[in-house]
Amino acid sequence: MPASSLALQALSGLPEVLPGMDLAALLCSAARDAGQHLVDGDVLVVAQKVVSKAEGRFMDLRDVAPSAAALALAARVRKDPRFVEAVLRESSAVVRASAHVLITRHRLGYVMANAGIDRSNVPGSDGGERILLLPLDPDASARALRAAILRQSGARVGVVISDSFGRPWRIGTVNVALGVAGLPAVVDRRGGVDRDGRRLETTQVALADALAAAAGVVMGETTESTPVVRLRGLHWDGPGGSGQDLLRSVAEDLFQ
Amino acid sequence: MPASSLALQALSGLPEVLPGMDLAALLCSAARDAGQHLVDGDVLVVAQKVVSKAEGRFMDLRDVAPSAAALALAARVRKDPRFVEAVLRESSAVVRASAHVLITRHRLGYVMANAGIDRSNVPGSDGGERILLLPLDPDASARALRAAILRQSGARVGVVISDSFGRPWRIGTVNVALGVAGLPAVVDRRGGVDRDGRRLETTQVALADALAAAAGVVMGETTESTPVVRLRGLHWDGPGGSGQDLLRSVAEDLFQ
Repeated sequence: MPASSLALQALSGLPEVLPGMDLAALLCSAARDAGQHLVDGDVLVVAQKVVSKAEGRFMDLRDVAPSAAALALAARVRKDPRFVEAVLRESSAVVRASAHVLITRHRLGYVMANAGIDRSNVPGSDGGERILLLPLDPDASARALRAAILRQSGARVGVVISDSFGRPWRIGTVNVALGVAGLPAVVDRRGGVDRDGRRLETTQVALADALAAAAGVVMGETTESTPVVRLRGLHWDGPGGSGQDLLRSVAEDLFQ
Repeated sequence: MPASSLALQALSGLPEVLPGMDLAALLCSAARDAGQHLVDGDVLVVAQKVVSKAEGRFMDLRDVAPSAAALALAARVRKDPRFVEAVLRESSAVVRASAHVLITRHRLGYVMANAGIDRSNVPGSDGGERILLLPLDPDASARALRAAILRQSGARVGVVISDSFGRPWRIGTVNVALGVAGLPAVVDRRGGVDRDGRRLETTQVALADALAAAAGVVMGETTESTPVVRLRGLHWDGPGGSGQDLLRSVAEDLFQ
């Protein structure tokens, strides 16, 4: 770290992921089928959606009774009150709400649209009645996936569970890291010096977010087709980080 | 687009870039020396710093007389008043100011820390008196670089001029695109459908930002050593975009 080269390869051929499926086994199998055996130091970036599906994080909107707060907010953002209720249940705070935009702080700290709940690409959605929440704990999911891949393939890989985020001020989404295991999420360059011996101003680099963004380029949007990307060429020392390392505390948040 | 694989290679061996140097010639030469001839469809991500240096965008703080506004703001953010004056001259608005943090809207629309002005890695800086501004017009720089590379190497490449940005809510910097030429900056998926025929919710993908972020992983922080990364494996149709495509208008900005 940094690497002088990096190779990204989509692992295609995954089936539609259903609740209870062994995602690690599917990934190892997809890698083998592509002649792409996993090796120590590979990083797998996995779309949140397939992790959520394997974990069965579906909810049926027909089972959701919107609260008064959800009804009021839904009128403001012009979204289905039951969907807004589901978003609020997954959130600790509303950060911004306007027509067609609902940005909240997810209960785990991610500031994102709709608490990360998906309505597209949810099979059996019967006209949008079925929704898919984020994994219960993406860091725990990443650690479990990493451990299962080690058991099944012998390879010590890094795992990043990613999702696409909008950004203030900038058009379009990029993928960021929700959960991380086996590699640093943030690389701290505090105290580093440039070639003239001057102290570097930029101090912390969001490595796992950059890897998620890179993988997003080869994933495309319909993540069912290529929800997993293997990155090869990274080198790192020391213990792994977590997706929580990437979150600013509310106290130091200038954009609440 | 999307690619199923993507290869990133740092082009090392660039000399210290000085004002007036032919950056395209340096890049083509660095690629040749590495046995990495550029071909049609390659994308070069170039660190803003070397573009600014080639364009001679240096300023000496000893020549800067801070205004009353700069003096007041400098006391608030605890930065050198002359540096704050330089930031204000490059900015159209102050977005957030607190101790050690000065986020402005750059005159070209980028919302970023210190209007993108660097104090580290500026040669001859005599204890930090010399600073380096962003290129005058990063999109124009990207277009000129692309045209010069075509003349000199025959290859039709895409060019992204990148810089590292902090983000609200998230720790650490990622690289984003300031200037773009020869490839789309934003890929519009409005009206796209997922595999069940459902309309996709996520509509616009910030391709050039994702490529900049990816390249940042192989650039490292001290961008002098590897300020250029070649990306191979992308496919795109249609006209190129610009860095301006990535900027939300002030009117639709929820986080002013």
